[in-house]
Amino acid sequence: MKRNRVNIRVIYADTDAMGIVYHTNYIKWFEIGRTELLRSVGIVYAEMEAQGYNLPLTEAYCNYLSPAKYDQIIVVETELEYLKRASMKFVYTIWDEDRQKALVEGYTIHACTNNLGKIVRIPSFILEKVNEQMQIKF
Amino acid sequence: MKRNRVNIRVIYADTDAMGIVYHTNYIKWFEIGRTELLRSVGIVYAEMEAQGYNLPLTEAYCNYLSPAKYDQIIVVETELEYLKRASMKFVYTIWDEDRQKALVEGYTIHACTNNLGKIVRIPSFILEKVNEQMQIKF
Amino acid sequence: MKRNRVNIRVIYADTDAMGIVYHTNYIKWFEIGRTELLRSVGIVYAEMEAQGYNLPLTEAYCNYLSPAKYDQIIVVETELEYLKRASMKFVYTIWDEDRQKALVEGYTIHACTNNLGKIVRIPSFILEKVNEQMQIKF
Amino acid sequence: MKRNRVNIRVIYADTDAMGIVYHTNYIKWFEIGRTELLRSVGIVYAEMEAQGYNLPLTEAYCNYLSPAKYDQIIVVETELEYLKRASMKFVYTIWDEDRQKALVEGYTIHACTNNLGKIVRIPSFILEKVNEQMQIKF
Repeated sequence: MKRNRVNIRVIYADTDAMGIVYHTNYIKWFEIGRTELLRSVGIVYAEMEAQGYNLPLTEAYCNYLSPAKYDQIIVVETELEYLKRASMKFVYTIWDEDRQKALVEGYTIHACTNNLGKIVRIPSFILEKVNEQMQIKF
Repeated sequence: MKRNRVNIRVIYADTDAMGIVYHTNYIKWFEIGRTELLRSVGIVYAEMEAQGYNLPLTEAYCNYLSPAKYDQIIVVETELEYLKRASMKFVYTIWDEDRQKALVEGYTIHACTNNLGKIVRIPSFILEKVNEQMQIKF
Repeated sequence: MKRNRVNIRVIYADTDAMGIVYHTNYIKWFEIGRTELLRSVGIVYAEMEAQGYNLPLTEAYCNYLSPAKYDQIIVVETELEYLKRASMKFVYTIWDEDRQKALVEGYTIHACTNNLGKIVRIPSFILEKVNEQMQIKF
Repeated sequence: MKRNRVNIRVIYADTDAMGIVYHTNYIKWFEIGRTELLRSVGIVYAEMEAQGYNLPLTEAYCNYLSPAKYDQIIVVETELEYLKRASMKFVYTIWDEDRQKALVEGYTIHACTNNLGKIVRIPSFILEKVNEQMQIKF
């Protein structure tokens, strides 16, 4: 199963007065993880949008294991857990730089909608890329 | 069971290019919900901190039902689902202004830590306020 | 000259690891200040947009005098400094709750654009409201 | 004069309902610019902090020329304009990926404070690095 990793450096803007990363920022970084996983198999989300498709979130979950701190490099690791007719689930682990310690784990589930906001089937050009590049049939 | 409601107006900063509220902002608003629920029973989180206690998140979950839009007033409704020796769970519903339509539902679970970051029992002054004000024994 | 004040409570999400409000958040709060100043004279920015007009920023400036902290109530005070054919300038002071101490001062300048992004004259229904309600002719 | 460039990809979280980057995010990216400029001459801001020094903002200014959009790669270019006894000024240009079009220009001015929040002289280890690496005497 294809997996993608992106490195991100924590900036001051991401931290809070507890001296650690504010909890919603990990879920914001999940966005970078899934966008780059899709890009790595030839699916550019901005182009999907231009063709009238969106992948709005239906669920998000995050389990906080150990806090990230200012200036730390973290690694967002993303996998596509499933792809159904009209939804997709991504799972994430955010690691410290050496991937010795998992900082958070989580997932997001997405619907596929058209530009009127109606739920539609995931378009075939997405399915094909996923099947081809991820050696997996959903 | 005591329940708290706070009204928030969506600003441009909260929205994204899909024309709706960016998904992590609902989870940011959960913070306002639980802080104001605690304040309503006499627990000021800033004072807890001054006494050396924190309530960092261990889990967050959000189910997205219907998007909020720019300039809309939304209502964050918060309840304390449980309070254990060293953890608390809050559940949230974010409604449209008239509370006719639920926009998101979710929860957060918190540990209680001291100022060294170690997990400790929830201090008795918190338990007493909760028991007294919420007419509930956890 | 008409002036508007809005109270805002600082949340954890607004703070950073220095234990104070992260600097861009004051500029985000300027948005609330000008939106509510306009609303107070009958101009709802969301309706302007629905009619095809936007007021994108062309300049922003902020002078940081004294930091705001977690859970503090701050007061955003906004005035319209000028209104020209195709631009507007708002000036802001953010105070502590008692308005004894100015925390930041700043301004934003805005162009008026149509829904193609072209700069256009500020529509007459805006000028009229401003003249009428602010007892001022620009 | 030493100059630093960092590439950043715009994510959904950075955009707003106007379909462009929300205006405070450019100022947030200025932070990445100056941190990486300092790092490139051997000054790690996190280490400065560990030694008890901070560089809080005293002023920020941003001139918006052309909007950045979702998924666009932008280039943050940073220079140190001056370094005085107790303050520093950085100037920034944010470009499109090919550096053909300037999107925003701006500056930030910083005081140097100790861990009690008092303004102090910029420590000599900073001055030396700047003199050495930037071939410039302030």
